[in-house]
Amino acid sequence: MTEQTFEYQTFVRLHATDAAGVMYYSQLFILIHEAYESLLDSLDLRLADIIREKPYLLPIVHAEADYSLPAMVGDKLIINIKSISLNEKSYAVLFEIVNNDGEIVATAKTVHASIDKTSRKTIPLPQDITDSFAKFAS
Amino acid sequence: MTEQTFEYQTFVRLHATDAAGVMYYSQLFILIHEAYESLLDSLDLRLADIIREKPYLLPIVHAEADYSLPAMVGDKLIINIKSISLNEKSYAVLFEIVNNDGEIVATAKTVHASIDKTSRKTIPLPQDITDSFAKFAS
Amino acid sequence: MTEQTFEYQTFVRLHATDAAGVMYYSQLFILIHEAYESLLDSLDLRLADIIREKPYLLPIVHAEADYSLPAMVGDKLIINIKSISLNEKSYAVLFEIVNNDGEIVATAKTVHASIDKTSRKTIPLPQDITDSFAKFAS
Amino acid sequence: MTEQTFEYQTFVRLHATDAAGVMYYSQLFILIHEAYESLLDSLDLRLADIIREKPYLLPIVHAEADYSLPAMVGDKLIINIKSISLNEKSYAVLFEIVNNDGEIVATAKTVHASIDKTSRKTIPLPQDITDSFAKFAS
Repeated sequence: MTEQTFEYQTFVRLHATDAAGVMYYSQLFILIHEAYESLLDSLDLRLADIIREKPYLLPIVHAEADYSLPAMVGDKLIINIKSISLNEKSYAVLFEIVNNDGEIVATAKTVHASIDKTSRKTIPLPQDITDSFAKFAS
Repeated sequence: MTEQTFEYQTFVRLHATDAAGVMYYSQLFILIHEAYESLLDSLDLRLADIIREKPYLLPIVHAEADYSLPAMVGDKLIINIKSISLNEKSYAVLFEIVNNDGEIVATAKTVHASIDKTSRKTIPLPQDITDSFAKFAS
Repeated sequence: MTEQTFEYQTFVRLHATDAAGVMYYSQLFILIHEAYESLLDSLDLRLADIIREKPYLLPIVHAEADYSLPAMVGDKLIINIKSISLNEKSYAVLFEIVNNDGEIVATAKTVHASIDKTSRKTIPLPQDITDSFAKFAS
Repeated sequence: MTEQTFEYQTFVRLHATDAAGVMYYSQLFILIHEAYESLLDSLDLRLADIIREKPYLLPIVHAEADYSLPAMVGDKLIINIKSISLNEKSYAVLFEIVNNDGEIVATAKTVHASIDKTSRKTIPLPQDITDSFAKFAS
């Protein structure tokens, strides 16, 4: 857990909306993952390196979101990564999505498992991951 | 609740996969919503009519998924709508996603609120919705 | 070129539409590629095998579409693959997208280059590809 | 035509890539439209206002792209809007997409028609649009 949060700013673009006039629900999961990738970049943990070179992968095994307000085309959204909780073989990331009026649009959570790239069996969290997230958490 | 299930068949197409070689996590939410729209079609409840003509909307207020196996490009997936639970002002839809070997790839759930299209306040589930889902549930 | 066409049926689902009430333009490129993947399946040319096992790749180097009618949520679309033109190191696929009233919604074209998977240099079209597309063209 | 260009910076995020390890081709059309929406924002032409309040719409009637280099997850991309060519009832937008090494990844073009929102017939370009794009072009 951490009291430091990571902030990622984005906009609701037309492709993310649907014929009901609001952001389509699954787009939230894309936006929070973009925020998460931006956090990884800031920690010098590049997804490209993990995918190509590391012996492990960190796939999402659980995802959930609660939607409280619609987001419209053109809206600015702030995605706050509120915390990363480290477990032995997984970690959970908590997100809060806020609009330009400071209202909470949604909250979300992803849980990532640590798996061996070849066997796809769960393994303890890699040291470089726990070190990096500890740096974020400090 | 229902013992009848609705089955929707689809394929994991290239656009749904990512550089880690598997289906990107948020795509599951698109596939289950396609299954849900197919169910609405089968019940003569067309989304286009709801969006254009009805005084209510049924936005998703909660979504969650648990991923147990990766899905690869070309994989055939069966999306089973296992049940629809009706509450006073909302309903929950349960999904089970199975691959061609009969293995469960993921389970998922969406919760839809019933809201007034103009005020966006929650309202009791519309009669045509409860009737249609009851028909499905019988 | 061919007089035989391959037909793929799909629906405009909510995620493919935008706040202007119609299908978002880039979704057409996803739908035609789904039709193309379905054609590959029917020719026993599986994308998964090409990506994992073959020494070549067939990336899209050009794409274009002309849109004549809007497509709405719930619309059934027929995607016809009208022809595949084989060149020495590339091939072009022509698509026609028709709605349930038989009206042309759009036409589109993709051009695929044949490249070596390691060097990414263009190479002559692989024999299994020309053979398979000839079978389709016959 | 204009010698001034509008520059939009973005990143290739995981969802935009596919199992072949590179950015999926249709994602380019999403990125260039994000750049275009960012340009509209900078000109105080908000898509939300056009969709909700204006008597016209500006749908894309033609789109094309030429891909010269693959883009990988994590890549920074600069999308340059090179010019906007105004015709009587349409306009064309030219894009150049450049990676972090200054190499051209792709070029693209969209053509937008000016239509009446109710009749969907083509109409002369609205004055506020030609004025705004002239300001951009100056």
